[in-house]
Amino acid sequence: MTGDMAQIFGEFIGTLLLILLGDGVCAAVNLNKSKAQGSGWIVITFGWAMAVAMAAYISGFMGPAHLNPALTIAMAIEGSLSWHLVLPFIIAQMLGAIVGAVLVWIAYLPHWAETKDQGAILGSFATGPAVRNSPSNLATEAIGTFVLVLGILSFSQHEFAGGVNVLAVGFLILSIGLSLGGPTGYAINPARDLGPRIAHEILPIANKGTSDWTYSWIPVVGPIIGGIIAVLVYNVMV
Amino acid sequence: MTGDMAQIFGEFIGTLLLILLGDGVCAAVNLNKSKAQGSGWIVITFGWAMAVAMAAYISGFMGPAHLNPALTIAMAIEGSLSWHLVLPFIIAQMLGAIVGAVLVWIAYLPHWAETKDQGAILGSFATGPAVRNSPSNLATEAIGTFVLVLGILSFSQHEFAGGVNVLAVGFLILSIGLSLGGPTGYAINPARDLGPRIAHEILPIANKGTSDWTYSWIPVVGPIIGGIIAVLVYNVMV
Amino acid sequence: MTGDMAQIFGEFIGTLLLILLGDGVCAAVNLNKSKAQGSGWIVITFGWAMAVAMAAYISGFMGPAHLNPALTIAMAIEGSLSWHLVLPFIIAQMLGAIVGAVLVWIAYLPHWAETKDQGAILGSFATGPAVRNSPSNLATEAIGTFVLVLGILSFSQHEFAGGVNVLAVGFLILSIGLSLGGPTGYAINPARDLGPRIAHEILPIANKGTSDWTYSWIPVVGPIIGGIIAVLVYNVMV
Amino acid sequence: MTGDMAQIFGEFIGTLLLILLGDGVCAAVNLNKSKAQGSGWIVITFGWAMAVAMAAYISGFMGPAHLNPALTIAMAIEGSLSWHLVLPFIIAQMLGAIVGAVLVWIAYLPHWAETKDQGAILGSFATGPAVRNSPSNLATEAIGTFVLVLGILSFSQHEFAGGVNVLAVGFLILSIGLSLGGPTGYAINPARDLGPRIAHEILPIANKGTSDWTYSWIPVVGPIIGGIIAVLVYNVMV
Repeated sequence: MTGDMAQIFGEFIGTLLLILLGDGVCAAVNLNKSKAQGSGWIVITFGWAMAVAMAAYISGFMGPAHLNPALTIAMAIEGSLSWHLVLPFIIAQMLGAIVGAVLVWIAYLPHWAETKDQGAILGSFATGPAVRNSPSNLATEAIGTFVLVLGILSFSQHEFAGGVNVLAVGFLILSIGLSLGGPTGYAINPARDLGPRIAHEILPIANKGTSDWTYSWIPVVGPIIGGIIAVLVYNVMV
Repeated sequence: MTGDMAQIFGEFIGTLLLILLGDGVCAAVNLNKSKAQGSGWIVITFGWAMAVAMAAYISGFMGPAHLNPALTIAMAIEGSLSWHLVLPFIIAQMLGAIVGAVLVWIAYLPHWAETKDQGAILGSFATGPAVRNSPSNLATEAIGTFVLVLGILSFSQHEFAGGVNVLAVGFLILSIGLSLGGPTGYAINPARDLGPRIAHEILPIANKGTSDWTYSWIPVVGPIIGGIIAVLVYNVMV
Repeated sequence: MTGDMAQIFGEFIGTLLLILLGDGVCAAVNLNKSKAQGSGWIVITFGWAMAVAMAAYISGFMGPAHLNPALTIAMAIEGSLSWHLVLPFIIAQMLGAIVGAVLVWIAYLPHWAETKDQGAILGSFATGPAVRNSPSNLATEAIGTFVLVLGILSFSQHEFAGGVNVLAVGFLILSIGLSLGGPTGYAINPARDLGPRIAHEILPIANKGTSDWTYSWIPVVGPIIGGIIAVLVYNVMV
Repeated sequence: MTGDMAQIFGEFIGTLLLILLGDGVCAAVNLNKSKAQGSGWIVITFGWAMAVAMAAYISGFMGPAHLNPALTIAMAIEGSLSWHLVLPFIIAQMLGAIVGAVLVWIAYLPHWAETKDQGAILGSFATGPAVRNSPSNLATEAIGTFVLVLGILSFSQHEFAGGVNVLAVGFLILSIGLSLGGPTGYAINPARDLGPRIAHEILPIANKGTSDWTYSWIPVVGPIIGGIIAVLVYNVMV
């Protein structure tokens, strides 16, 4: 595959893998009888860090591997991405996220019926606030995504040896998760949250409860705001 | 050593080290009185990730360091490996896995008699399902190996700086373990499971119980299916 | 931005990010209802390691990214930094640290009111001794910073592939934290401790107690002493 | 410093740092009131892995940074090290290990009096068996060191990008610790065990008990045997 089609398909398959591995680690830690049940925050944060790095390696030879609408929008504003690719990228990211969540459902199929906690099930798909407070939750998501996008932008100023840039991206996700994930579970990516939430709504998951749509706008709007602020700050720095 | 003999011996010594270090971490966490007893999923997953990376470093100058029949078959289908090496590689991988498991038995020798839990002892050799369900367990093993083989194939599209590719392989194993290991303990490799299961059957291990042969076909068939699907998807991507 | 202004602004934004991510992980582990609450020393130490690495990546294209007055003073003595930049760097580092701590307060805003333990709140800003003993605490901070500065100096003797040097710095911080952080929480950086302590004093944080000013000189003086000793030892080595 | 003197001093300062950071993490986890108390095997293993990597970075520009008599002897047999340096290297490693242990005693000074468990205090200096069984303990130490030396030898067959080789060494130590450390605490280095044991005997440590000299020969003899076997196997491989 080549050209725009390769880039768009790269966003699809990359986001699919991101959610398969990312929501996978949430399922691993949350669900009853999982061998990783209760293994904690270090497993969650390394799981998401490696999910992003591996999704970026696997899809990165097809395109820029944004895998994140907030990053795609920021990159278009910053000038690194042609605007005509923004909508196709976001659609591909959303579709990839939904399919990735379906694969998590399949990979952990016998475990949903074993799990009675509806919050643990939803938490294997979408994020939620530790303390529900819309302005604060929005600020936390914006701050986390600010660090993410500023990090990605600054990486372009370094000459990384082959393959090291993707490891650095993984460690950037690790850092944000460890340090800023406590209040909202660090969506920092509208597709990462909204795609699996749609899958949670649609799929016939055993024991599932509400998909918590009242919270769903925060991991969409917060990351977009944070990404735009990062572009503004970066333009002061360079 | 040079030529095919070096490549085949590389598969033997590499898989031996893979199982020594990989089953070693299972023994470390599972067995009574081990200093690492109960240290959890983060130890298991880093242990296997580093086991694969170190086995690949040590055997990688002799050959491709597949260390995994599912990867060997996928690479032959994809065209990277000559078919005449497939059977010798698989035999070497199986023998290496058995010898590696014998070394784990020796390294932890006083601890088997200290451990009364037969499941903990078998779990230091072979994998087992958290919830026994053949189609689901098969799907989980196929999905995990799909990510493994797609990852390895995509790495060939990157120009890694020296030594970074092996670290990336280690982090790929870390990612799969953290995210997809919950339901079946991520064999994702027929030799990794079958070789030590044979050793468990044969060795005079104190307190051992059944080798659970009814489950044994799943970590053989699932990974082979997942690897083949990865080749098909990869051929769409490139 | 170019010249001295870029270097000074780099110290500001870098230290801001260092404290946002570093104190962020302390808040994540310490504060009630945080999803990372109680996740322990491995989270704290990886959090700070990645905080330093990411802050160094993001600010490192503007200047040397010391982000630490003890390192700045050591580098001036060693001859790598012009003396006229020492005071501007330290002021920028202090201001960055204060602003970073304000952002931590905002990112975790609903959690302060949920946390009754004043020590947990102060521990999300500044360090404190496990056993209060001024000469010992001073020695521990000096030894930790000795390793930090000797490590940074020795890195200049290696030819790192692009981007690997910053990862090595992150692992140096990880090492110091894991091994020497037990007695005092490894400030090893006057700005890292004093800046957030000032923020703790000034900000209207719910449930906050004393800012423990009697201890505050130790994470300033200890690191400066340790850094100077490292320069002396390094000069014997080269 | 240049020539043999630089290489010998490199072994001294490198082993000093190895033990300061390595025994440091044991003290961090073992001692009462340490902020890292009880943080477990993942902290111990990452602590030692990073200790070796950082000691190798800091001393590696002066010489080969063996920091381990078993590795020094293996390298002399293999032909990479001139025999006239073997005795000076081992003496420098032993002295460095003793001084490093003294610095651990100082860095954790108030914590020895807080700790009543004599085993926890000795475990912050030297290793000990989980199950006391001389032939088994000897075999475990030999197997661990076999992997260590075979790994180091095989690394010379790779062309590592700058700085990556030292990270690979750190991950090799991580792997051995996670997988083979359970029965004996993985000395895999005569200086690492004997040097701090001498310091434990000599220093006026509060609450200390026996230095367990009956066990002390195993972490000396086992690693030397394992290292020699690794050279023999490596010579078959190349």
